[in-house]
Amino acid sequence: MESTQYTVAVIGAGLIGRSWSVAFANAGAAVRLYDPVKKSLEQAEEWLKKTTTAQDMTEDVLSQIKFCTVLEHAVEGVSHVQESTPELLDVKRKLFATLDQTVPPNVPIYSSTSALLPSELFKGLLSASRFLIAHPTNPPHIVPLVELVPSPWTQEGIISDAISFFEGIGQDVVLLRNEIPGFVLNRLQAALVNEALRLVAEGVAKPNEIDKVVSSGLGLRWAFIGPFETMDLNSKYGFAEYAERFKDSYITLDRFNSKSNAWNSENISFVAEALRETNSLETISERRTIRDHKILALRELKKQFNAAYLRSENGEK
Amino acid sequence: MESTQYTVAVIGAGLIGRSWSVAFANAGAAVRLYDPVKKSLEQAEEWLKKTTTAQDMTEDVLSQIKFCTVLEHAVEGVSHVQESTPELLDVKRKLFATLDQTVPPNVPIYSSTSALLPSELFKGLLSASRFLIAHPTNPPHIVPLVELVPSPWTQEGIISDAISFFEGIGQDVVLLRNEIPGFVLNRLQAALVNEALRLVAEGVAKPNEIDKVVSSGLGLRWAFIGPFETMDLNSKYGFAEYAERFKDSYITLDRFNSKSNAWNSENISFVAEALRETNSLETISERRTIRDHKILALRELKKQFNAAYLRSENGEK
Repeated sequence: MESTQYTVAVIGAGLIGRSWSVAFANAGAAVRLYDPVKKSLEQAEEWLKKTTTAQDMTEDVLSQIKFCTVLEHAVEGVSHVQESTPELLDVKRKLFATLDQTVPPNVPIYSSTSALLPSELFKGLLSASRFLIAHPTNPPHIVPLVELVPSPWTQEGIISDAISFFEGIGQDVVLLRNEIPGFVLNRLQAALVNEALRLVAEGVAKPNEIDKVVSSGLGLRWAFIGPFETMDLNSKYGFAEYAERFKDSYITLDRFNSKSNAWNSENISFVAEALRETNSLETISERRTIRDHKILALRELKKQFNAAYLRSENGEK
Repeated sequence: MESTQYTVAVIGAGLIGRSWSVAFANAGAAVRLYDPVKKSLEQAEEWLKKTTTAQDMTEDVLSQIKFCTVLEHAVEGVSHVQESTPELLDVKRKLFATLDQTVPPNVPIYSSTSALLPSELFKGLLSASRFLIAHPTNPPHIVPLVELVPSPWTQEGIISDAISFFEGIGQDVVLLRNEIPGFVLNRLQAALVNEALRLVAEGVAKPNEIDKVVSSGLGLRWAFIGPFETMDLNSKYGFAEYAERFKDSYITLDRFNSKSNAWNSENISFVAEALRETNSLETISERRTIRDHKILALRELKKQFNAAYLRSENGEK
């Protein structure tokens, strides 16, 4: 394990706070896990022991995490603060007002919120400029995707520091420029989940059948490439041609299906040009081969897992 | 390679027909790839050579595929027919009328259509009872998910034979009971893609950022478990409790957001009960650990791929 100069205060010892602690400690940071309720810290410690053992982490990971019931001790001399308390606007705003006073100036303070918007959350804080949403994917020590959502007051330096910090601890980082409820990840998830629930309600398929369509179909591609690259690779001349051929079907399948048509030519050109900046059309067939290799390797991995779990269900080791 | 008793006529040598040929041959079936245009067959043969080599398949796979420009030769004595022609209702209906006459009775005829509904496609055919939609995921020799969609006339025996046939050649099979445009896979994909395009149009994120949210976030889970199992594992008491906590946020994020609320209590109970049939609440924490192990293994696999492609870009072997 690399050791870093970071000392991170994690505020709140619930599921997200615990998992953040593992992610930070696993990347070599010193962690102070704070919760006002002693019982929560004890439960967190138990969970941390089980998790670091189950995931074959070294003893060090656990030893880098200190437990604090006093906020002042937790934040003393830290380089970063990660807030992970319940999704209640008043609770969080009260906590931020306290952190505003307690945490040395210039130390960035990140919120894990998934449900609240930065313009509401950080409004009126004295040092609003150092506050930033850093929304993890659950659980962050397993799924390495952080959405950064600045408020109108967040300093550019705080944003660039956050990108280096989270990339440095092995997370993939996406920076959102316009705040929107659900950010990107939960909006995409909700779009698919809401459609899945409608298909169930309409009697088209059962939950386990829909799950199979995702885990044996869509998910195999999406583990390696996102929806835009998927469409880009599915047409000889990339996304622009794909959109020409399929936009009508996508509009037909859109339940929202409305005035605000996202398949307008301006938006299509914007996407096609953005893709061309990083993905050359000349290498499309090569990239398709790479995609296929990756999917086949993932299928092989899944087969091994299935065989292993079958053996363990049969009582073998 | 196992050898089977199957002989499959694949009608149409486009991208889907070619890929089906590999999937069938790779599972040990004899394949007759039919296309009326000689040039298409030549291009298909070239693609097949490249693909079977790139994916380290044995010579046998290629040798099991015969090329036919005469329909009668292609279907003579076959056990199954897989139609993969362009998505034009008239073209397909004309072809099916011919197959109706040419293919020995009781041989099942599957259509690869993704865009047409079985009740339109098979209406009025003499032997409509042996026709069935078997919609593959592109490309079927890589992504192993088939949606079966019967028409009102499809025989039960044809459906059960199709399930054994496709599972026998290594595909995962989902049977739809109500036809709906897009079936399940394309409806779920469209829900996510349409939302992704709206987020781009609204300036929230760029295409490559949305791709990253999927490939580093949502896709890591969905490679192993679908949306319902994901929600089920994210709450201590499973989906019912999850729905209680999050249904309001899902409804808020739903652009369709309407009269037909899929988060009604009846639908929630149906999903929760369906999940409980196969996934016991008692094993939820164990299944969460398994999910995490799988995701970590996938991340390791992706790291290896990235390192390998970086080396090959640097000119190493």
